[in-house]
Amino acid sequence: MLRHVTSINDLTNDEIERIFSHADAFLASLGDPLVRHRIATSTDKARGRILATLFHEPSTRTRLSFETAMIRLGGQSISSADPATSSAAKGESLADTVRVVSNYADAIVLRHPRDGAARLAAEYASVPIINGGDGAHEHPTQTLCDLFTLRRENKRLRNLNVVVSGDLRGSRTIHSFVYALARFGANIMLMPAKGMELPAHVDERLREEFNCRAVPRQMYEDDNAAINALYVTPDMPHQLSLIPSVEVDAPVDLKIRKKIDVMYVTRFQKERWAEASADYPRIDSNFLRESKYSDTAVLHPLPRVGELDVALDGDSRALYFHQASYGVPIRMALIDLLLTDPAMQGLDRYSGGFATSPRPMYNRPYAAGVRCANLNCIVHDPLERDYIRDKFWLMDGGPAGAQRLRCVYCESNVDAHAAGNMKKREFTVLSVGPTERSSEIPAHLVFFRDRDEALQQGYVEKSPRERHPSHA
Amino acid sequence: MLRHVTSINDLTNDEIERIFSHADAFLASLGDPLVRHRIATSTDKARGRILATLFHEPSTRTRLSFETAMIRLGGQSISSADPATSSAAKGESLADTVRVVSNYADAIVLRHPRDGAARLAAEYASVPIINGGDGAHEHPTQTLCDLFTLRRENKRLRNLNVVVSGDLRGSRTIHSFVYALARFGANIMLMPAKGMELPAHVDERLREEFNCRAVPRQMYEDDNAAINALYVTPDMPHQLSLIPSVEVDAPVDLKIRKKIDVMYVTRFQKERWAEASADYPRIDSNFLRESKYSDTAVLHPLPRVGELDVALDGDSRALYFHQASYGVPIRMALIDLLLTDPAMQGLDRYSGGFATSPRPMYNRPYAAGVRCANLNCIVHDPLERDYIRDKFWLMDGGPAGAQRLRCVYCESNVDAHAAGNMKKREFTVLSVGPTERSSEIPAHLVFFRDRDEALQQGYVEKSPRERHPSHA
Amino acid sequence: MLRHVTSINDLTNDEIERIFSHADAFLASLGDPLVRHRIATSTDKARGRILATLFHEPSTRTRLSFETAMIRLGGQSISSADPATSSAAKGESLADTVRVVSNYADAIVLRHPRDGAARLAAEYASVPIINGGDGAHEHPTQTLCDLFTLRRENKRLRNLNVVVSGDLRGSRTIHSFVYALARFGANIMLMPAKGMELPAHVDERLREEFNCRAVPRQMYEDDNAAINALYVTPDMPHQLSLIPSVEVDAPVDLKIRKKIDVMYVTRFQKERWAEASADYPRIDSNFLRESKYSDTAVLHPLPRVGELDVALDGDSRALYFHQASYGVPIRMALIDLLLTDPAMQGLDRYSGGFATSPRPMYNRPYAAGVRCANLNCIVHDPLERDYIRDKFWLMDGGPAGAQRLRCVYCESNVDAHAAGNMKKREFTVLSVGPTERSSEIPAHLVFFRDRDEALQQGYVEKSPRERHPSHA
Repeated sequence: MLRHVTSINDLTNDEIERIFSHADAFLASLGDPLVRHRIATSTDKARGRILATLFHEPSTRTRLSFETAMIRLGGQSISSADPATSSAAKGESLADTVRVVSNYADAIVLRHPRDGAARLAAEYASVPIINGGDGAHEHPTQTLCDLFTLRRENKRLRNLNVVVSGDLRGSRTIHSFVYALARFGANIMLMPAKGMELPAHVDERLREEFNCRAVPRQMYEDDNAAINALYVTPDMPHQLSLIPSVEVDAPVDLKIRKKIDVMYVTRFQKERWAEASADYPRIDSNFLRESKYSDTAVLHPLPRVGELDVALDGDSRALYFHQASYGVPIRMALIDLLLTDPAMQGLDRYSGGFATSPRPMYNRPYAAGVRCANLNCIVHDPLERDYIRDKFWLMDGGPAGAQRLRCVYCESNVDAHAAGNMKKREFTVLSVGPTERSSEIPAHLVFFRDRDEALQQGYVEKSPRERHPSHA
Repeated sequence: MLRHVTSINDLTNDEIERIFSHADAFLASLGDPLVRHRIATSTDKARGRILATLFHEPSTRTRLSFETAMIRLGGQSISSADPATSSAAKGESLADTVRVVSNYADAIVLRHPRDGAARLAAEYASVPIINGGDGAHEHPTQTLCDLFTLRRENKRLRNLNVVVSGDLRGSRTIHSFVYALARFGANIMLMPAKGMELPAHVDERLREEFNCRAVPRQMYEDDNAAINALYVTPDMPHQLSLIPSVEVDAPVDLKIRKKIDVMYVTRFQKERWAEASADYPRIDSNFLRESKYSDTAVLHPLPRVGELDVALDGDSRALYFHQASYGVPIRMALIDLLLTDPAMQGLDRYSGGFATSPRPMYNRPYAAGVRCANLNCIVHDPLERDYIRDKFWLMDGGPAGAQRLRCVYCESNVDAHAAGNMKKREFTVLSVGPTERSSEIPAHLVFFRDRDEALQQGYVEKSPRERHPSHA
Repeated sequence: MLRHVTSINDLTNDEIERIFSHADAFLASLGDPLVRHRIATSTDKARGRILATLFHEPSTRTRLSFETAMIRLGGQSISSADPATSSAAKGESLADTVRVVSNYADAIVLRHPRDGAARLAAEYASVPIINGGDGAHEHPTQTLCDLFTLRRENKRLRNLNVVVSGDLRGSRTIHSFVYALARFGANIMLMPAKGMELPAHVDERLREEFNCRAVPRQMYEDDNAAINALYVTPDMPHQLSLIPSVEVDAPVDLKIRKKIDVMYVTRFQKERWAEASADYPRIDSNFLRESKYSDTAVLHPLPRVGELDVALDGDSRALYFHQASYGVPIRMALIDLLLTDPAMQGLDRYSGGFATSPRPMYNRPYAAGVRCANLNCIVHDPLERDYIRDKFWLMDGGPAGAQRLRCVYCESNVDAHAAGNMKKREFTVLSVGPTERSSEIPAHLVFFRDRDEALQQGYVEKSPRERHPSHA
């Protein structure tokens, strides 16, 4: 059973803790990274091993920290740092590229501009894929550095008040980070730039999959006017008692609302947005002057481009260069556990308590029916066309009269308002409610976003009075 | 005596066999490349050795497989993967670059957009040059992988029926491959896209240098309508008896015409052609449904861009990912033999039976007379202008009243219809037949493509009744 | 105390000699780099060490020779060869980049298009910065190769007649080279292309800091019409006696004027100049036909683009490929001494006799007053804006009624004609002579280029009769 790390959720809480204690040991061997003239000792644990770094987007710290980690482990890297000089420039699919590079390397780190690219790569690779950032989807190894930084500062995640600010829509680091925060029981406070709010499907997953409760606005706005949403994870007894239901206006412990433990800042992603944002949050000592920020750990995945004042660098609350410095030991730990530790293999997907029950997968040929609604998803990349099947998890939520589907690659949602039978070429509008849940999906079932899509594909509408075509 | 591999013909048949048995051993040490979780063991054979990979064109698999091979041998690589960030961007010639890099590395792999670039590099390097693909000329290490794949499948090359399809003009892999097929006695069947037929000089070399016979069309068209040319190598006794002469319409053993042992597919080279080709051959299971394809090994050097159906990937006839996987052991074997094996040194150029007798070389200063007719040849690169002499082998063929010349770099042909004396600045149109063959080329002899070229260069025409100026 | 090599003047003469004897040993272990089939042996001195090569401009030989040196020392490199694929493409400052990469590598080689970039990097790095070329400022490791080449040819630098030709303005290699020549007592003869004369501040430093004397034109023009300036370093007794004063038309030993020991040629820097230069010096055998060139060592840092005739390559005077070949042992020696030799640490800045007395540093917030006059200086890079303070050394020279300032980063000069008090927001035009020299610079002193600049910044002019505002 081959292990990939395409999402922070591919790792259990226990595995994350395991990576951290492993990284502690590597950190000690490297010496304090912020002390000048350290002597970094290397190991031989990955001697003869090769890591491929395939970067289809610019990077300095992610690629170089992976390559450094590999060297410090005694191994070596092969690198393709520029899509313009790789076979992608000749029109090669990612699927073929990773199949070929699997023959060269013992693991592959992939960065790609498309959401879900790492998952597609994992389907075709014969060695572990590590997601080094895929579009706006996830950046799990950054999140490992983020969590490790807080752990090194003796901040326990449970009940921690964490503000995430900036581009919550386009920042892949935020998405991996908030899932991890929810899983470890932190309170998540959102401070997005206008129009850059957390994507709906991430919000939905936080609430439905990771048991977060959105706190009513009036319960925190006096203290945190800039925060536009606050989630707590009420699966801990004391939290459940505090906020039994979001509908109830019960008093909330002020501790939750006031003290900010972590301020996580992200840059404006100019490569993903056409226009700059005038109200983009800028964090500086003036912003942090209130007493609730007196012990706040300021984090930033870097690079920064103006949203985090350089004058803060000497402030004891500024931890972002520590955070960057942990990139090497964390990645050493991850590579070492993936390449050499048999205990990393065969573990269930996040068994730490956050896994939902397995959902049925709807798996159809390319464009046979509904397609992922996220146009930046890897399934829409013309180079991958021949390698893609449209795969979705069947979800419970969604509007009445529709079936909610979650793309297996980019994990965004689409609601199917019509369904049909591929063999009979007939369809029905799902006005009578979603498809009955079943672990068996009929072989000929096909979903459509709506009636128009079904008609365009040449399907014939059946009378709505008849039974659902998938059960016909 | 320094050994370079600029063409598959720089290696004898015996040397190629030697490389293959060496690669067998490396392959065993690497483990099966298509099995997950293999453990690749490394050697120390190239410890302390450095390979430079200078890539002036995009590449993933060639560069990374060479670098992987070097790591697996215990050595290391230095790499320039992008001409835009190399000294070529400052206007440095390839000749100077390889002279300098020869000081750093123990061998150099070169990829370059110009035909014949590897030969020019070999003239200036003080370490072995390995051609990683030069324009549309050759790609010898790909051919080694191709042949090795067939050998691993227990396919003996002698008498094998091999179809090569697609862009036979622009594909450097095809050119190296067909020379090797001819040398090992395979039958070569051409299935080009329209306008992408095998270049005339490659066809000529197959027939004149490698003793291939073109089989008359009516002898195979019933069975292979898509094939536009078929060569057999009648230097083997049983073949000679089958096809004593192409002029004779004798019956040909159907075995030659029917069973296809290998289908070698190549991609449309968008970087070499302005327009797409509508009739470009596309190989899929429908194409391969006839019984003559039932045991066909399907090869492709990759990347593919649509000409080879992805749905074939699971077909047992599809060997192209095996082919890609052999890149590392084959390149390990080649590097090891070039860097460390004294027996690789001093061997004559393809002594395996295919060498023609040494031809006289015509070697003149830049643009002193006739120039290579191939405008993509390295001799026409403005950056190399000061480093180039116009060098040709004097050939036997060509039209009456002309001297055929083969460019030493790109190996394409040009016919000289006039010749003169550089000292007297006189010339004659070669209306009375080609220059008498001689191993001594007169010091002042100069050739011209035609009368106009000679006049433009300020030469005075002598009366055609006089003797040839070179012998005056 | 962390050592950086941002300028050739960061190394003492003794240290340079130390590097050379160290390089001799490495050269012996590498074998003769110009002999084919050498066996290069590697050491383990840098085992486990990592060099980062951050190249924001194209390079082949500098980057690859550093990486080769690291491999030959037993260490490894991580490389960012293309700004378009690095975090700079996302808008990250150099300051942040080197802070982060300091966590990965044990030393950083930086190439950057901005003058003074290496000095800025050194302010932020926690590991040694080696300047691999910063704009038109300096290229100290090239100069080490240049001097080492002459030393290997048994040319003692003292009294050597060295012509430097070509683009003396834009060539960073020239600037480092002439400082070193002056420090070691060579005579420097300038042969610039028109408009590409040595920058005024380099000329000034040669004369004022390195004690060079400009020789009057009439004393050498009969023999060297092409030379437009000649410097000797009269701090050696025999030279002092020869040229007691530049104002005196005393006869000069013809030896100084006639025999040319070294001809150092540089290319036209098309990346720094908009237009080509028609009179750019071209060195060929015709140029070198005079007897004074009979033993001239011809050097060139390469790449060349036409200014140095390829036909010279076989001439025994041509040493430029030797020069290139010394790149590896010189850089091995420098890296080894920087990374492992404690004696390299804590040495004073060029204690070898050329250091001037410490000058007071004027250090003000970004754009608080006068700014560097060199628009290509790193202080004008928009990405670095938040990381820059305007820092200058207070110099003695300059026109009457002005204070000369030397930029700490790019080392060019600017003359301040006005000065004020930042607190009182008042200023005075410096019509009464430069500020009194003092090792204490008043905390509120601010300089302006001129009266207009002060007024634009909202300062109020005080009566010129009053005392200098900085002393008020």
